[in-house]
Amino acid sequence: MKNIDETAEERHRAKMANRKAVQDAEVAEKTLEKGLLIVHTGPGKGKSTAAFGLALRMLGNNRRVGIVQFIKGAWSTGEQPALAVFGDRVVWHTMGEGFTWETQDLKRDIAAANKAWEKALELMADETIGLVILDELNIALRYDYLDLEKVVAAFQARRPDLHVVVTGRNAKPALIEAADLVTEMSLVKHHFKAGVKAQAGIEF
Amino acid sequence: MKNIDETAEERHRAKMANRKAVQDAEVAEKTLEKGLLIVHTGPGKGKSTAAFGLALRMLGNNRRVGIVQFIKGAWSTGEQPALAVFGDRVVWHTMGEGFTWETQDLKRDIAAANKAWEKALELMADETIGLVILDELNIALRYDYLDLEKVVAAFQARRPDLHVVVTGRNAKPALIEAADLVTEMSLVKHHFKAGVKAQAGIEF
Repeated sequence: MKNIDETAEERHRAKMANRKAVQDAEVAEKTLEKGLLIVHTGPGKGKSTAAFGLALRMLGNNRRVGIVQFIKGAWSTGEQPALAVFGDRVVWHTMGEGFTWETQDLKRDIAAANKAWEKALELMADETIGLVILDELNIALRYDYLDLEKVVAAFQARRPDLHVVVTGRNAKPALIEAADLVTEMSLVKHHFKAGVKAQAGIEF
Repeated sequence: MKNIDETAEERHRAKMANRKAVQDAEVAEKTLEKGLLIVHTGPGKGKSTAAFGLALRMLGNNRRVGIVQFIKGAWSTGEQPALAVFGDRVVWHTMGEGFTWETQDLKRDIAAANKAWEKALELMADETIGLVILDELNIALRYDYLDLEKVVAAFQARRPDLHVVVTGRNAKPALIEAADLVTEMSLVKHHFKAGVKAQAGIEF
């Protein structure tokens, strides 16, 4: 614990009072409520993980969550058994057959992506669902497995209170343009570079 | 669905086979298992959310999770009731008294941060716990509420299989230096700018 004199305390109080005034004014300006189109992109870790974190937050607010995995799915991840605890409050569709370099079959990849997109539309139409996570949709868009214009149009036509999260590297500019919230996860440092392998609870 | 000729398919197959070979070689090189020190920093959304997503992944792998919130805590978030479903597999300590501009009391902030750090050390010493999340610890370090050297030394002395996630903006360089995995969440676009307010399931 530091030794603090009265002056430092007073300075801190004044600075923080000022900060609070700015903060309160900013909060007061925001009055809209709307379902958000959220994009998690970039080369860093945390894109899907943060989407699943939002699922948790949504469940804690007593809303239902729908999830479609566009690419992953050839292996199991920890989120699925964990979210199973919430029963039918989570609807989970694993449509992908693994990364595209695993299947090496363009026709099959396109068919899988389109089937996954049908599921996405179904979940987005379900009024009991507050959040739809479209995991790795950006990959399907990047490889042109799905029509970008069709996808963006469906997002723009969604019901006003529905939140949608799209994850995956290399988000298309038209999707970023249509989104309300875009976060880029950048890689500052990665343990794979140091020879550490994928581990339970971290990568899957 | 596109009309694809044989050549395009063959090209796709060759490209993806090559990609798979690179991928497989990369995976084979990684043989280490170790508890990671993970840092989520940057001005974007998703730092805490991705940490809670990792908690979910860890729980799905049947590991226990410990959480200390250093700053937040003056209001409730959806994660807490959601994770309550997992019973004593999640240990949650909310030690902060709100953002520092809410308390405006330097001594109280320092005392709260040090109390939170004691809890963090307790969780890190608990061998039944696989992941410890120190939410907003970076804020406490930034304002010098805690001694940086002491904190980094404790991380370096942790047991080899323990994963630790530290969140918050402005991570200190010494912490980044000590970390295995650092992701910076950058703000590409934020709905607050468009006047949208904080909403249940998204911000809390």
